[in-house]
Amino acid sequence: MTALGSAAGPVAMSASPEAALSLAVAEALRGHRGANPLVGAVVTGADGAVLATGFHRGRGTAHAEVAALEQFAATSGIPPAEAILWVTLEPCDHTGSTGPCTEAILESGIRRVRYAVADPTGHDGGGAARLRRSGLEVEQVGPAAAETSGAEGLNRRWLQARDAGRPFVTAHLAQSLDGRVAAADGTSQWITGTESRRHAHAVRSRVDAIVVGTGTVAADDPRLTARDAAGHELAVQPVPVVQGRREVSVDAALRRGPEGAPRGWIHVREHDPRAVLDRLRQARTAWPHGGDRPGHLLIEGGPTVLAAWLGAGLVDEMFVYQAPLVLGGGPTGLDLPHLTTLTQALRLQPDPAENGGLSRLGEDVLLHYAAH
Amino acid sequence: MTALGSAAGPVAMSASPEAALSLAVAEALRGHRGANPLVGAVVTGADGAVLATGFHRGRGTAHAEVAALEQFAATSGIPPAEAILWVTLEPCDHTGSTGPCTEAILESGIRRVRYAVADPTGHDGGGAARLRRSGLEVEQVGPAAAETSGAEGLNRRWLQARDAGRPFVTAHLAQSLDGRVAAADGTSQWITGTESRRHAHAVRSRVDAIVVGTGTVAADDPRLTARDAAGHELAVQPVPVVQGRREVSVDAALRRGPEGAPRGWIHVREHDPRAVLDRLRQARTAWPHGGDRPGHLLIEGGPTVLAAWLGAGLVDEMFVYQAPLVLGGGPTGLDLPHLTTLTQALRLQPDPAENGGLSRLGEDVLLHYAAH
Repeated sequence: MTALGSAAGPVAMSASPEAALSLAVAEALRGHRGANPLVGAVVTGADGAVLATGFHRGRGTAHAEVAALEQFAATSGIPPAEAILWVTLEPCDHTGSTGPCTEAILESGIRRVRYAVADPTGHDGGGAARLRRSGLEVEQVGPAAAETSGAEGLNRRWLQARDAGRPFVTAHLAQSLDGRVAAADGTSQWITGTESRRHAHAVRSRVDAIVVGTGTVAADDPRLTARDAAGHELAVQPVPVVQGRREVSVDAALRRGPEGAPRGWIHVREHDPRAVLDRLRQARTAWPHGGDRPGHLLIEGGPTVLAAWLGAGLVDEMFVYQAPLVLGGGPTGLDLPHLTTLTQALRLQPDPAENGGLSRLGEDVLLHYAAH
Repeated sequence: MTALGSAAGPVAMSASPEAALSLAVAEALRGHRGANPLVGAVVTGADGAVLATGFHRGRGTAHAEVAALEQFAATSGIPPAEAILWVTLEPCDHTGSTGPCTEAILESGIRRVRYAVADPTGHDGGGAARLRRSGLEVEQVGPAAAETSGAEGLNRRWLQARDAGRPFVTAHLAQSLDGRVAAADGTSQWITGTESRRHAHAVRSRVDAIVVGTGTVAADDPRLTARDAAGHELAVQPVPVVQGRREVSVDAALRRGPEGAPRGWIHVREHDPRAVLDRLRQARTAWPHGGDRPGHLLIEGGPTVLAAWLGAGLVDEMFVYQAPLVLGGGPTGLDLPHLTTLTQALRLQPDPAENGGLSRLGEDVLLHYAAH
C-alpha cells in the first residue's frame, strides 16, 4: 500500500481526487491506444491508501474497473464498504465484448465511486445513474481535478476520431538511425530486429485494417498478416487496404490469407486519406474485431501514403522503430514535398506514458509519439 | 548497503569478484566517454555488502577510486582494514590533473585491493606494484571475472584509439524524427530543443576540437563555441577544425572566440579523416584540456564529413538528438553513396550504460550509440 500525495512515505491522509485520479491516469496510459478509450481505475481506502489499480489494456479485454476490483478482492484486507473506486471515465452500463462495469461494481460491495469524465459513448445512458439507482454514492469529480490529473485530456484524440466518425489511426515507421526505410537498391528486409517486428505484428493483430500504397505493394509485395515470432499467422488478421490508382497484381501476397486461402481486401483508387475513410465506412466487410465499421487503422506506408495521412492531421499515434544501422542512402519514410521550411514542420509529441514513449526493443529503439 | 548477487534483499555473503566488478562496471558506464578511460570502483565488506561506489566522470575530475573512498570514509561504519576496494582498472600511480590514486588508497587505510585490467597507460609503472611495496594485498582478478563483469571490454574502443595514436572520436547528429537535418530550404535552427542543445554544448566543452566540413561553414556559419543555456561561452572552448578544400570566409564566425577575439582554428584541406588526424597530431596548438595532442574530437558534420568518419571506422561513440518533428523533405545527416544495399549498412550498438543509451531531453530523445 502506498499513500497518495506523500513523497515521504506511506502516511494516513484523506484521499485527494487529484492524487487518486493522477494514478488512475498513469494506469490508463499503460493500455493500448486504439478502438477503445484509455481507462484507468484505482481503489483507495478513505485515508487515500492505494489498495488496487487496474487499466483497460484494449478492445476485448477486461475493463479498468474490473481489473482493479479483482485485484482489490484478491489482495485487500479492508471491507469493500470502506473503500472508494476512482475511475478516469464513467463506468459503462453496456454489454459489449465484456459485461457492464456497473454489475462488477455492484458485485464488489464497494459503495463509493468517483469518476472524472462522463461516458461519451451514449450507450444505454451512463453507468453513474444505474449505480445511483442501486443506492451507491457516485460522484463526478470537479473539472479542476479532471483537468490537472490528466483524465480530461486522456482520450482527446480518441474523442476527436469518434466525433468525426472515423477510426483511431496508428502510423508505423521502421527506419535506420539515419532515417532510411530502405537501402539505395530498395532492400529493406530487415532493417529492424526481431523484437521490433514482433511488436509491429502485435499492433497488426489489434487493428481492423492495414493501409499501404500501391507502390509498397509493387515494391515489397507484403503479406500484411499478423504473425508470431515463429512466423505463424495469429488468430486475428487485419483487412489489407491498398490506397492509390495503380493496379494490384493478381499474384500479390496480400490477396491470400493463412494457408493461401483467398482473403478479403480493399482497393481504394484514391490518394486522399479521407476518400479511404469514406470507403471503409461503407465497406461491407467482416472486420476482424466485429462491428460494422473499422475502429482502428494502421498506416504502414510507403512514404507518400504515410505523409498523406500525417499531413491531413489524421494520425493519432505513431510508432517509430529505429535500428542502430547507418544506411547512408536510400529513401526516407515520409515524403512531404510541400513542407519547405522549418516552421512548417509537423510537430508530434512524446506519448505521455510513464516511460515517455521511449523503450528498447532488442538493439532497436521504439519511439512512441502522440498527435498534438 | 546492498548485498551483491542477491535479488531477495541484503543478506550476508562473501564478495564475488564478478558481482563486485559488475557493479563497478555499471558505475564506470556513468562516466563520459572521451580522452580518459572509463573506470568504476566499489568498496565492499568481506561479506560482499556494498559500502561505497564511485566512477570517473571524465578528464579533470576525481578518479573512480577517490570518489568511492570519499564516500566510504563519509558513510561507512566499518574499519577500513575490513573493507575491499574493487576497481575495473589498475589504480594509477601518476600525477596528472589529479593526484595518484595509490596515495588516496594508502591514506584510506584500506588494505585489500582487487582490480580487473592492468594499467594500459604505462605511466611510471602500475599502481599495483607501488601498493604492494607499501604492504597492501593487491590482486588482479582472473580473466573470467574480468570478462564476464564487462571490465575487460569497457574501454575497448578507447584502447584501440590509444593504440592507433589517435583521439577518442564522438559524432553528433541532430535530426527530425524522419531523419532530416534541415528543411528543404536549408533552415535547421532549431530542429532540436533547448535541452538537446545544452547537452550538445556540454559535449563541446569536453572535447579538444570540433570537426566540421567547409560546406557546413559556408551554409550555417557556426560559431563552434561551447555555450551555456543563457548563450554565454563556457570557460573551456574547443578548437574549430575545418575539413575540406573550399576556402573559409574571412568573416566566418568560427574565427572569433569569446567577445570577438581572434581564435586559433585549423583548416585541413583534405577529405580523408586520416589526413585530419595526421594534421592534428602535428599541430602546435594550445589544446583546451592540455597535452600536446588532442585526446577527444567531436565530429559535427555535415553529412559528407560525418559519413567519412563513420565509414572509416573512426567514430567511437555517437549522439543522435531526435526531435518530435516531421520535416518530410530536406537533407539527411549522413551521405554514404557507396552503401547501396542493406547488407552493407554500418552497424552501431546501443551504448551499454544502464539506460541502454536512451534518454529524453525535453520533448527530444537522445540516442547514444557505441561503435562495435
